[in-house]
Amino acid sequence: MAAERLVVVGGDAAGMSAASQARRLKGADELEIVAFERSHFTSYSACGIPYWIGGLVTERDALVARTPEEHRARDIDLRMRTEVTELDLAGQRVRSRDLESGTESWTGYDRLVLATGARPVRPRLPGIGAAGVHGVQSLDDGQRLLDSLARTRGRRAVVVGAGYIGVEMAEALVQRDFEVTVLHRGEQPMSTLDPDMGGLVHSAMNGMGIRTVARAEAVKILQDGDGRARAVAAAAGEEYPADVVVLGIGVEPRTALARAAGLPLGESGGLLTDLSMRVRGHENIWAGGDCVEVLDLVSGRTRHIPLGTHANKHGQVIGSGVGGGYATFPGVVGTAVSKVCDLEIARTGLREKDARAVGLRFVTSTIRSTNTAGYYPGAAEMTVKMLAERRTGRLLGVQIVGGAGSAKRVDIAAVALTAGMTVEQVVSLDLGYAPPFSPVWDPVLVAARKAVQAVRATGV
Amino acid sequence: MAAERLVVVGGDAAGMSAASQARRLKGADELEIVAFERSHFTSYSACGIPYWIGGLVTERDALVARTPEEHRARDIDLRMRTEVTELDLAGQRVRSRDLESGTESWTGYDRLVLATGARPVRPRLPGIGAAGVHGVQSLDDGQRLLDSLARTRGRRAVVVGAGYIGVEMAEALVQRDFEVTVLHRGEQPMSTLDPDMGGLVHSAMNGMGIRTVARAEAVKILQDGDGRARAVAAAAGEEYPADVVVLGIGVEPRTALARAAGLPLGESGGLLTDLSMRVRGHENIWAGGDCVEVLDLVSGRTRHIPLGTHANKHGQVIGSGVGGGYATFPGVVGTAVSKVCDLEIARTGLREKDARAVGLRFVTSTIRSTNTAGYYPGAAEMTVKMLAERRTGRLLGVQIVGGAGSAKRVDIAAVALTAGMTVEQVVSLDLGYAPPFSPVWDPVLVAARKAVQAVRATGV
Repeated sequence: MAAERLVVVGGDAAGMSAASQARRLKGADELEIVAFERSHFTSYSACGIPYWIGGLVTERDALVARTPEEHRARDIDLRMRTEVTELDLAGQRVRSRDLESGTESWTGYDRLVLATGARPVRPRLPGIGAAGVHGVQSLDDGQRLLDSLARTRGRRAVVVGAGYIGVEMAEALVQRDFEVTVLHRGEQPMSTLDPDMGGLVHSAMNGMGIRTVARAEAVKILQDGDGRARAVAAAAGEEYPADVVVLGIGVEPRTALARAAGLPLGESGGLLTDLSMRVRGHENIWAGGDCVEVLDLVSGRTRHIPLGTHANKHGQVIGSGVGGGYATFPGVVGTAVSKVCDLEIARTGLREKDARAVGLRFVTSTIRSTNTAGYYPGAAEMTVKMLAERRTGRLLGVQIVGGAGSAKRVDIAAVALTAGMTVEQVVSLDLGYAPPFSPVWDPVLVAARKAVQAVRATGV
Repeated sequence: MAAERLVVVGGDAAGMSAASQARRLKGADELEIVAFERSHFTSYSACGIPYWIGGLVTERDALVARTPEEHRARDIDLRMRTEVTELDLAGQRVRSRDLESGTESWTGYDRLVLATGARPVRPRLPGIGAAGVHGVQSLDDGQRLLDSLARTRGRRAVVVGAGYIGVEMAEALVQRDFEVTVLHRGEQPMSTLDPDMGGLVHSAMNGMGIRTVARAEAVKILQDGDGRARAVAAAAGEEYPADVVVLGIGVEPRTALARAAGLPLGESGGLLTDLSMRVRGHENIWAGGDCVEVLDLVSGRTRHIPLGTHANKHGQVIGSGVGGGYATFPGVVGTAVSKVCDLEIARTGLREKDARAVGLRFVTSTIRSTNTAGYYPGAAEMTVKMLAERRTGRLLGVQIVGGAGSAKRVDIAAVALTAGMTVEQVVSLDLGYAPPFSPVWDPVLVAARKAVQAVRATGV
């Protein structure tokens, strides 16, 4: 019997994890694997780009988990700088173009994995294409930004957007000795948090010398005589001088091919899959990574959450399925962590507006504690906000902002959310305690105690 | 109607938390509260003593969460330096002695809370009473040790025992510029870990210049002409010169009064309670803190686990019950964290020998990863060991040894154990990921993946 052929579209985390896991389960005599990647890189950590830009990570290649050569050594026919331009589902084939030579060709498949990732939201502003305006989605983007920073004599940077990428890039540019202004559309930075918690991030960033401007919608990039960006104009008329402009305004699923082929997409435009990451309604097509929507176990809705950690899990699950094994990706609870300088930022589960949007009624509790015993030297503030369902007391979400240890503290809540625990159950959790690591009541437990009271106060 | 009287025996975490919570629920017109404490201090953090000895915490009073005066201001009749010497359950009264004056008296109660704590295991060695030999259980002990360190000209310290107290005291003495030798009876230090993980602690301590001696049973304290300790003699005949000796060999429940009164005790000598922390078979007696045994939710057995974090929870639960509210302490999973210098040490659930002792069959997985993305500067090693039940794959225990972030990482497993998750469920957990905080696969997830494979390999 001739080997079956697996075609993988996209050579980053999800695609190459899938290919590698499939290869572990099936040798080249059973399964031929062809993978297409548009860029110069495979299997790299996009999440690491801000730390490379900031100079903490000195070598670009440190961000590459596995090179094309390493993949090829495992009998994966990896075609770099080759873009898939069409999916022919009826014919079970994909059309691809070699970006160097322009040559196009068709490749048949028995099984198909779509891992086309996400693309940065790049607003159609006048001047958006000017020199000195940079996205930070890919290693190629990162290299261009680094080159630009090296050439720039001025020290003024404007970051557009104050989500994870925006705040991480603000930190990176501070580390490169830039004066940083962050423009964002909302009331507070980090709109992945409730505004009250975003306000803490706002204060901390200002304390670090990072200027943040709320309700600032960028409408135009102003250029100098050489066509280089010189300022960002906002809707209200202000101009923010900039020697470099970084766009940190999020990404959207890259699913034009899938859409053209009639594959099912969710509200965000991400592919919809079943629990084994097979595209719904398609026995021999899988999808994973930043191009899919995932099930949010708390809200019961699918959402687009582009994160390397999910992409890697998707790849494992897909590779197991393609290779004849069995695994599922049950869903997420919406955990995300970040930092800006010494301030750690974390969330999991639902924000207030998420909970309202799905018809949940809830109480909130917010407490301020410390990351270690209060008397331990260097004890830093930690603020924990918790949402719990009315009546049932079911934990719905947690947000944490504070010093060292705040970010991964949220894992406690992530596991509790997955288990469907009530805040009363959370109060009783047997968490690690020693003075260098926690007050005797962990801040998460203190928030849960207060949430229990709030639930009781609402009556039955 | 006259107020009921609550008598609390023991004025540290459990006793005074109970008293405070009862007072929140019932005013002085409804509930009179009398509390007896033998020592000079209330509500202090014994866990903080090593950091005070090491000089990180400079003021003893920083370890006191609430002073006698603060308790009295809340209408608690707190009798310091007063020891309860007898429980008369039939008569519903306790006998106490004023340790200053020697006066004895009886106090009647309607409700009784026993929070008598634990006492250090002090082996009956010749010379154990010599000057320069110190326990570190109470603030009084700590003050005596600090005074002794200040007087001592020599720089050689011997710590007897390599459990949490032993390793924390080793660190403290290193910080005080002592040459530290730790004698312990087992194969490896930290017998709360499996020996393979204890071996990592051993290596790290040696790397820090702390000498550890395995299979070393202290049999005698040798003294100089002034009756001051000069060396510790071990069973095999060696002598370890010491200018100061610190005993860190654990504690046992202080339940002589309870035993004399016929109250139910477990195998370790700790009081046995129900889920609301009432002493089994006694409607109007509660007990909590280091003098009770707690239910281990993983093994189904009761165990003695003296920890401030449990004591505080017990106090809350007891205070709620005494005050006419409702709360329970469902049990523990055996989480404990510590550190010795930069090395963090954590465990939760069962060790191999614990699992065997209760008839569980299991697989283990041990993996080595890093606390941050491998490319992030300062990435430190983290070793995770996981135990999972054969066939079912139920998580049974996790041990972690490594750099920053290792200790509280164990909370993930603590919550998963509480929820009764399988290692396959653990693999899918949505944990916080960003390069400064975790590799894209959190080390706990990597261990779980390997454990899943091990479970599968054992068949059904």
